[in-house]
Amino acid sequence: MNQLITETCNKIKSADRDWHVAAAARQLNLTKPPGSLGRLEVIGNRIAAIKQTDKPEIKAKRIYVVAGDHGVTEEGVSAYPRDVTHQMVLNFLNGGAAINVLGRHGGIEVCVVDAGVDFDFPPHDKLINRKVCKGTANFARQPALSTAQAEQCLAIGIELARSAKADGVDLIGIGEMGIGNTTSASAITAVLTVFPPKDVTGRGTGVDDKTLAIKIGVIEHALELHAPNKRDAIEVLSKVGGAEIGVMMGITLGSAAEGIPIVADGFISTSAAALAVVQCPRVADYLFIGHRSQEQGHNKLISFIGCDPLLDLELRLGEGTGAALAMHLIEASTKLLSQMATFNEAGVSDKDS
Amino acid sequence: MNQLITETCNKIKSADRDWHVAAAARQLNLTKPPGSLGRLEVIGNRIAAIKQTDKPEIKAKRIYVVAGDHGVTEEGVSAYPRDVTHQMVLNFLNGGAAINVLGRHGGIEVCVVDAGVDFDFPPHDKLINRKVCKGTANFARQPALSTAQAEQCLAIGIELARSAKADGVDLIGIGEMGIGNTTSASAITAVLTVFPPKDVTGRGTGVDDKTLAIKIGVIEHALELHAPNKRDAIEVLSKVGGAEIGVMMGITLGSAAEGIPIVADGFISTSAAALAVVQCPRVADYLFIGHRSQEQGHNKLISFIGCDPLLDLELRLGEGTGAALAMHLIEASTKLLSQMATFNEAGVSDKDS
Repeated sequence: MNQLITETCNKIKSADRDWHVAAAARQLNLTKPPGSLGRLEVIGNRIAAIKQTDKPEIKAKRIYVVAGDHGVTEEGVSAYPRDVTHQMVLNFLNGGAAINVLGRHGGIEVCVVDAGVDFDFPPHDKLINRKVCKGTANFARQPALSTAQAEQCLAIGIELARSAKADGVDLIGIGEMGIGNTTSASAITAVLTVFPPKDVTGRGTGVDDKTLAIKIGVIEHALELHAPNKRDAIEVLSKVGGAEIGVMMGITLGSAAEGIPIVADGFISTSAAALAVVQCPRVADYLFIGHRSQEQGHNKLISFIGCDPLLDLELRLGEGTGAALAMHLIEASTKLLSQMATFNEAGVSDKDS
Repeated sequence: MNQLITETCNKIKSADRDWHVAAAARQLNLTKPPGSLGRLEVIGNRIAAIKQTDKPEIKAKRIYVVAGDHGVTEEGVSAYPRDVTHQMVLNFLNGGAAINVLGRHGGIEVCVVDAGVDFDFPPHDKLINRKVCKGTANFARQPALSTAQAEQCLAIGIELARSAKADGVDLIGIGEMGIGNTTSASAITAVLTVFPPKDVTGRGTGVDDKTLAIKIGVIEHALELHAPNKRDAIEVLSKVGGAEIGVMMGITLGSAAEGIPIVADGFISTSAAALAVVQCPRVADYLFIGHRSQEQGHNKLISFIGCDPLLDLELRLGEGTGAALAMHLIEASTKLLSQMATFNEAGVSDKDS
């Protein structure tokens, strides 16, 4: 394995238990009944442990929306034509997509990354060009990515996390665009969770029954063909993954290494995050799942990682939309912990007084 | 019944089905798979129907945090001393409470209303003084409010909604503070939903088993004593309600009359909203429930109203905290509907192309 990846994983520390305890103690002094802010207290304490302070602050939020095409679309697994990937990238650049609206709404910088789109984009100052391939190979026949390409994706993601850190970003989200990528995410989920493909494969952008059956069949066939080792995340990524999934996996590892909390979005970005957790289990300390996707495989991944999603709004769009909305809650949790008055400061009687 | 209340109820129109349909049609043209924004689409369409446009906008958000004391605290139903109500009002005015933090975070104006606190506040430019009583009467022995006081609460709430409208506010939230008010909310819930008190009474700010048993006993006794008519919302309010609950009920009626969507918070504000729905069922078209509270009675009220909460974060603080967070989602839903590019505008291929 490439040295950068090894170094990055070695750099990831478990979140600091002492600061978690200190934050939990501070919560008890804030002017509210103990525990009454529910999961917002838990999230605030987790951020405190990551940032090693009991008054955490989030100053700058960024979502990387990573795009890539998928050779497996040749098998007829998607409801939309492959061209939609590059068309949607142009939509992101023009500010017309859902993630652009939610980024503006939430004060979140949206950075668009071309990891493997099958299209030559004209130069654009908002497009981060990190093209590893012009679409993956069709994993129904051969590995989606070579091992070198898979490692290149991780390196790109790690570099993106580092550049976020250099820019003062202290909360990172990941989202994606890639026609065919729920097929990849379902295959990854089947491998990691050992559920049969039919239990972790959904309708993606909205395929009909016939296409769903094809999609499940393609995944079953691919897993037999490649027999990826579920303990080797890079092998899984290479055999049935995608360039955008690899880059998101790299961003997740890189964020954890830089001590930055990371918010996955829905099914596909969570499959990338799950691969990062396999690569280095300590990543889970830094990971938040933005929302519970309508894709049935997502619940299996959530259980696999052991981290509850923040929102349940029946979203299934991707792009980082659920991550964007969840960032508002995560930031709220840190502000509550940092900015609320204590019983003493406010002159409010505590329960026992 | 007081003329203002009658006029206000008569003014409430059902939300406009035609605009709901127009918004749903617009959703299908936006650059996303149909339905992929899940509940955000439903919420956006509801706002479109309220505001009679398929490109709704929310320009100014306000939460009224209404405070009042409860005579029933004499029975020993709360974990906190009664003084905490006025102490927390001062905390709101000083900006140190959870709702202040979330208001600043979400760009929401927080207005504090004294509806019935048992304390003489020094004049404060941020305190809206609408004191109906210095705490309600102990409803274990007599009606909490006289009919005149209950109607006065509604009139105050209606006036507050009108003044929000005059100030250009187009999304209103309600929250509250009042030691003892989960006892009132549980009593109201038992009356409206016909569940026995033990099924709709929770631990409030965190009472122990012994106090919980007292609380349930007090409610059972009060419902026998007063036998409020569940079809007469003002009677229910007067017999077992509270001043802050009455004002929130009035704000809810007034907002609907002014065509402004209204966001309830948790258990207590939802009990006020439920009374408003009993008073005028068309109110439900304007009503959003911010979050699912940890108080067991809340689920019963949610079913009674028939409106799913937006968030489920295990909150049980009140003050409007869940409403504040939900407002971010409601505003997001309107921006998505109004600002996303259509397939045509973005040059993206639709599913059928």
